[in-house]
Amino acid sequence: MNFEQKKVLITGGLGFVGSNLALKLVEEGARVTLLDSMLPLYGGNLFNIEPVREKVQVTFTDIRDQSSMDYVVRDQDYIFHLAGQVSHVDSITDPVTDVDINVKGTLSVLEACRKFNRDARIIFTGTRGEYGPSAKLPVDESAPTNPMGMYAITNLAAEKMVLMYHEVHGIRSVCLRITNTYGPRHQMKHNRYGVLNWFVRLAMDDETIPLFGDGKILRDFLYVEDLVRALRECALSEKASGEIFNVGSSQPISFLDLVQEIIAVTGTGRYEFRPFTAERKALEPGDFWSDVSKIRKTVGWTPSIPLQEGLRRTVEYYRRHRERYWKRGETWKG
Amino acid sequence: MNFEQKKVLITGGLGFVGSNLALKLVEEGARVTLLDSMLPLYGGNLFNIEPVREKVQVTFTDIRDQSSMDYVVRDQDYIFHLAGQVSHVDSITDPVTDVDINVKGTLSVLEACRKFNRDARIIFTGTRGEYGPSAKLPVDESAPTNPMGMYAITNLAAEKMVLMYHEVHGIRSVCLRITNTYGPRHQMKHNRYGVLNWFVRLAMDDETIPLFGDGKILRDFLYVEDLVRALRECALSEKASGEIFNVGSSQPISFLDLVQEIIAVTGTGRYEFRPFTAERKALEPGDFWSDVSKIRKTVGWTPSIPLQEGLRRTVEYYRRHRERYWKRGETWKG
Repeated sequence: MNFEQKKVLITGGLGFVGSNLALKLVEEGARVTLLDSMLPLYGGNLFNIEPVREKVQVTFTDIRDQSSMDYVVRDQDYIFHLAGQVSHVDSITDPVTDVDINVKGTLSVLEACRKFNRDARIIFTGTRGEYGPSAKLPVDESAPTNPMGMYAITNLAAEKMVLMYHEVHGIRSVCLRITNTYGPRHQMKHNRYGVLNWFVRLAMDDETIPLFGDGKILRDFLYVEDLVRALRECALSEKASGEIFNVGSSQPISFLDLVQEIIAVTGTGRYEFRPFTAERKALEPGDFWSDVSKIRKTVGWTPSIPLQEGLRRTVEYYRRHRERYWKRGETWKG
Repeated sequence: MNFEQKKVLITGGLGFVGSNLALKLVEEGARVTLLDSMLPLYGGNLFNIEPVREKVQVTFTDIRDQSSMDYVVRDQDYIFHLAGQVSHVDSITDPVTDVDINVKGTLSVLEACRKFNRDARIIFTGTRGEYGPSAKLPVDESAPTNPMGMYAITNLAAEKMVLMYHEVHGIRSVCLRITNTYGPRHQMKHNRYGVLNWFVRLAMDDETIPLFGDGKILRDFLYVEDLVRALRECALSEKASGEIFNVGSSQPISFLDLVQEIIAVTGTGRYEFRPFTAERKALEPGDFWSDVSKIRKTVGWTPSIPLQEGLRRTVEYYRRHRERYWKRGETWKG
C-alpha cells in the first residue's frame, strides 16, 4: 500500500513535521493539501515546501475556523492533524491559546469529519509530555498520564477526543505520542520550543549553548525522517487503527552529551551550565525515553537514523538555507 | 476547623450540589457567594437556596466571563468549582460547549486565581466518568483514565489543569471524582442527566421507568448530603491538598434493583425494559463502583446515608416542593 492518488490533508502543513511529510507523500504520488494559519511565532514557512510548491494545494486558514474545516476535510482519504500550539514556555503565560488551538482546534477537525467525512483516516500527533514524569524507564503506552503543563494537558485531551470519535462516530484514527524531534525545516527564529534545533543554531553561529542544571537529564531525540516514516506507516496500517503508539528513537542521551555531539558536528560553538529558571524547573519532567515495542510489533516501524547522522543532515540543511530560517544574532521576541 | 467567617465562592451555586453545599456552609457561618449563569437546560434554580436566600450573595454570571471571574475570586478563602456542562447526552451533539464550559471555564477560574488570589483553596468536582470502563472493581484512583465522552474527557482535562496550577502556581487544590449523585434540589425538568432523580420523578408521577438493556449494570449512588460532607472535609483537610479522591457510596446496586427500591419508596410507578439507543450504548462504560479507601484514610470521610434513606428523603423533598421543579407530564425539550 502507498499514497498514490490518495487525497491527503495536512494541518500545520507548512510547519516542521508537516512540510517534511508533504515532501515524502508528494514523492509517492499523493494529492496533498496543506493547511496552515502562519501564526508568527509558529513553524509555518513557505520555503519548507519549495521543492513541491507547484505540486501541492496550500490553504491559509486556521483549524479553529469551523466552516473552513467543514469544507477542506471533504473527500480527504487521510488527515494528518499536526497543527498545534507547541511551546511549553508560552503555555504558562497564555494557557487559553493552548485550549483554543489544541483542544477546540482538534475538535473542529473532528466535528468537520463527523459532519462531512466519516471515511477519513485521522493521524493525530501528541507528545511524550502526556506522560509527565516517568514512573519507569523506558516509558510504554500503559504508563500513567500525568502531564505537567498546558501544552501536554491539551494534547492529552485532544488525543482522548480523537479516540472517542473513533469509538463513537466510527472515524478511524491513530494517535502518536512523539518524543523530542529534530531536523531540517524546523523554525529557528526563537528558543520557545524545539530545543535540539535551537542548540544547532547556537553552535552554527559559534555562540554559547546554555545547559540547564547539570545537563544530565536523559531524552531520546528522533530525526524527522523517522517520524515521517512512522506517520505514513501508521496511516496505512489497518492494525494501527484506534491505537496509541509511542514514537521515539528509544536511545537516551544526556543533554550534555547531546550538546557535545552538536558542537563536534558543527565544529563551532561552546556550552555553559546555567541554573534552571523557576518556570522551566516546574515543567521539567526529568528523564524520558520511549519504549517503541508496540509500534514495532503492530506496524513494523523502527527508528533508523542515528543521532550523529541526523545531526549531520540537519546542519547540512541549515548551512545551505540558513538565510531562510534566521539572521545571525536576531531572535524573534514575539 | 470549620467555615465560620470564611469567604466561600461556589460556582454553579444555584445548582444541585452547589445549593446543598451553600445551605450547609451558611449554617456553619461562612460568607457565601454563589455564582450561576442560569443556563436553561442546567440545574440553576433560585428556589434551591430559599432557606438561605437572604444570607448569601448571588452573582448571575458565567465562569467563561474572565473579567467577572477575575473580580469575584478576590479574597475568597475557598472556591468550590461546581459549574459545568454535565449532560453526557448533549455532549455528543454539542461537544464544543463541553470544551468551552468545562475546560475554558475552569481555566478562567484558575487564571483569575493565578492573577488575583493565589491563596484560595480550590475544590474541583470531576466525575467517575474520567475512568471510563472499569479495569477492575471497585475502581481506585490509580486506575487508568479512558473517558468515553466529551463530558468525561473535558472533566479529566480540567482536573489536570487544576493540579497543574497547584504544582506550578502554588494554588492549592483538591480534585474529586464523584460517582452518580442524587437527592433534593436536582433539576427534574428533563432526563439528560441525573438518572436516579429522573427515575424518582417518573415513579412519583406514576409513570413507566425505562430500563436500558437487562438492567443488570451496577453503579454506586451517592446521596448529596454525603457529597456535601466530602466537599467540606476535603476543603478543610491540609492532607487533601494536591490529591485526587474518589467520592462514592461504594455500595453497588443494579439499575433493576434501584428502580424497584424507588418504586417501593414512592408506592407508585412501574418499569419496563428497553433496548439501548446506539448513542447511549456507545457511551455506556458498564459496571462501576468506587473504592473510597483513599479519602477515608486521608480525610476521614465515609458515606453514611444508605440508599433507602436517601431515597426516602429525596421523595419527601419533591413531594413537598414538586411544583418548584416540574409540571406533571411536561418535559423540557431544550
